[in-house]
Amino acid sequence: SMKEKTMSKTTDNLLEAFAGEAQANRKYLAFSRKAEQEGHLNAAKLFRAAADAETIHALKHFEVAGKIGSTIENLKSGVEGETHEYKEMYPPFVEQAEAEGNNAAVRTFTFAMKAEEVHAGLYQEAMDTLDNQEEVFYYLCPVCGNIEKVVPGKCPICGVSGEKFIKY
Amino acid sequence: SMKEKTMSKTTDNLLEAFAGEAQANRKYLAFSRKAEQEGHLNAAKLFRAAADAETIHALKHFEVAGKIGSTIENLKSGVEGETHEYKEMYPPFVEQAEAEGNNAAVRTFTFAMKAEEVHAGLYQEAMDTLDNQEEVFYYLCPVCGNIEKVVPGKCPICGVSGEKFIKY
Ligand SMILES: [Fe+2]
Ligand SMILES: [Fe+2]
Ligand SMILES: [Fe+2]
Ligand SMILES: [Fe+2]
Ligand SMILES: [Fe+2]
Ligand SMILES: [Fe+2]
Repeated sequence: SMKEKTMSKTTDNLLEAFAGEAQANRKYLAFSRKAEQEGHLNAAKLFRAAADAETIHALKHFEVAGKIGSTIENLKSGVEGETHEYKEMYPPFVEQAEAEGNNAAVRTFTFAMKAEEVHAGLYQEAMDTLDNQEEVFYYLCPVCGNIEKVVPGKCPICGVSGEKFIKY
Repeated sequence: SMKEKTMSKTTDNLLEAFAGEAQANRKYLAFSRKAEQEGHLNAAKLFRAAADAETIHALKHFEVAGKIGSTIENLKSGVEGETHEYKEMYPPFVEQAEAEGNNAAVRTFTFAMKAEEVHAGLYQEAMDTLDNQEEVFYYLCPVCGNIEKVVPGKCPICGVSGEKFIKY
């Protein structure tokens, strides 16, 4: 049954493998950019191809684990994940980084924490307006990951110029 | 000192946040495709923008954690990660999925396991030939994540036609 499948060891394994594949993909993306900077173009290319391979693995594991719901369910999952991050995960990380005097960590944790709160609100709004047919535009801050529906003069989270925002 | 920084709680936190951001990115990518299939184009757009926001977060956390080395170090990290996956992680996952009769899981784990072994070999080869200036081409199987240097008639891992392979 669906219930037994949800509770199985294999479902846990699928999600553990998903976590590994997701991290490998991001790692190889970072490594491909570094290889490009260093002029190692063949290595950059291999990291890109392998990153895309890990995308195939991650998405298939996630699907087989039964984690892709309807869009309304997926938006709810988004609200829950974002809310966990900005309320539970990031605040103690920011506090610990401050205690250690690690300014770069304080900055990256704080940007993410504030952006996740915005994401949670936007997912909630998208749930509430799912049947609205009028096209919506979103603008992404390339520095902190903030998302706005109207381009601001400066990003209210990180201060970067609104000209840098990316339109969706 | 660098050693103390490497051992700090904040470094652990950066890697935990990296893991969360990496998984959120892949999740939102899957959710954006699903929203497109369902014709929820605004939701698809928001999932894409948020996925890209999580990429910004993941890459910055990873960099601040000091995990981006030189390309030769990064290739070594690639060999180690791939070897762990194909030798340690996936074999018991395949066995457990077989015991549970979950054919879809057996298939996705087996494809990944075999592809990771290929990736490990290619990263090792790239380390050994890092100073080779001649351009190398790679071909990615879009079904199983196998990577070949010459397009095969059929993928030796999953059997898909070589015509489907993606050139890098
Ligand atoms: Fe993989
Ligand atoms: Fe987010
Ligand atoms: Fe920003
Ligand atoms: Fe994030
Ligand atoms: Fe791999
Ligand atoms: Fe294949």
